[in-house]
Amino acid sequence: MTTLTLYYTPGTCAQAVRIALEEAQAAHQLVRVDFAAAQQRTPEYLAVNPKGRVPALITPQGTLTETPALLAYVAQSFPAAQLAPTDAYGLARLQEFHSYLASTVHIAHAHRPRASRWADEPDAIAAMQRKVAQNMTECFHLIETHYLGDGPWVMGEQYTVADGYLFTIAGWLKSDGVDVQQFPKVHAHTQRMLQRSAVQRALA
Amino acid sequence: MTTLTLYYTPGTCAQAVRIALEEAQAAHQLVRVDFAAAQQRTPEYLAVNPKGRVPALITPQGTLTETPALLAYVAQSFPAAQLAPTDAYGLARLQEFHSYLASTVHIAHAHRPRASRWADEPDAIAAMQRKVAQNMTECFHLIETHYLGDGPWVMGEQYTVADGYLFTIAGWLKSDGVDVQQFPKVHAHTQRMLQRSAVQRALA
Repeated sequence: MTTLTLYYTPGTCAQAVRIALEEAQAAHQLVRVDFAAAQQRTPEYLAVNPKGRVPALITPQGTLTETPALLAYVAQSFPAAQLAPTDAYGLARLQEFHSYLASTVHIAHAHRPRASRWADEPDAIAAMQRKVAQNMTECFHLIETHYLGDGPWVMGEQYTVADGYLFTIAGWLKSDGVDVQQFPKVHAHTQRMLQRSAVQRALA
Repeated sequence: MTTLTLYYTPGTCAQAVRIALEEAQAAHQLVRVDFAAAQQRTPEYLAVNPKGRVPALITPQGTLTETPALLAYVAQSFPAAQLAPTDAYGLARLQEFHSYLASTVHIAHAHRPRASRWADEPDAIAAMQRKVAQNMTECFHLIETHYLGDGPWVMGEQYTVADGYLFTIAGWLKSDGVDVQQFPKVHAHTQRMLQRSAVQRALA
């Protein structure tokens, strides 16, 4: 097995990919990108990922970015770990959930630490930050009522890469001013994740 | 072949799914959701998609939402049309591009028509709208220089569902105050798309 290299920063959605790699028992190296030192804007890192963001995954075939793509790549490259459905509809459901997390929930959160992406004026940035808790609450209400069913995992009985992604973003709720305990299924899911040895290794 | 039903609104990213269905020659019905009449917030539509957005696709197995998921579903359900790579790395590259369009480019655009999602104050909404042209220009600079190579299509020689997605979002540049002609590869891609009969049918 050729080694994969994950560029990550603690506290970011790259954690979901670390969890997936641990669950897959995939041989991999980690390279930490220091946001505090603006390392993601250096020429060296922009040569890895011109978007200046994490995660990025170096594979034998080339570099991949975007969390949903990395999660799918890990699941499909290590099929023995059974980290994703294999039929077209099941895979599309997994991608639907990943896409909702990436393009709605992560974006709702990003308006607190990264509001300056979308406006320059300090008053506008403050206005965006004030709305984050409300938007994250709405997102997690939908996750609680629409996506999480009776099964222990996002996809039901099967544990998948989607679970590490939900766990990672649910971990941002506290700093966004949202009490996760108002979402009993999400809260139970987080507790269940913390008991998995792969998750414990990824957090170490 | 069982019929699929696509809920769509003209001018939205649902157009990418219409193009994919036409390219796949997939039997399908269309249901138009009238945003001007706020039809997406009616109980009837929220029963289809509790997010109150388009597109949504009714399949024999259930309802799917999120454009990247729908594009992957159409490509994988109609493999004869060869609308997506089939290896894990190629599929991940396709998903990377879809994810970038959904969670960065579409979001950059949405701060003009949908800025009220992220702040309540009119001054903050106006500040977000003022930055849209700059952000869309940066996004399309990256698409032009990083994603579009020498091949006629996003993935190179192979036409895929990603082409209809890029074509759809590039179509928003003018209303965002960005001249597409500053991006020669994107502009040529748009012209190439307009010559495809499936695209012409989807736009009709």
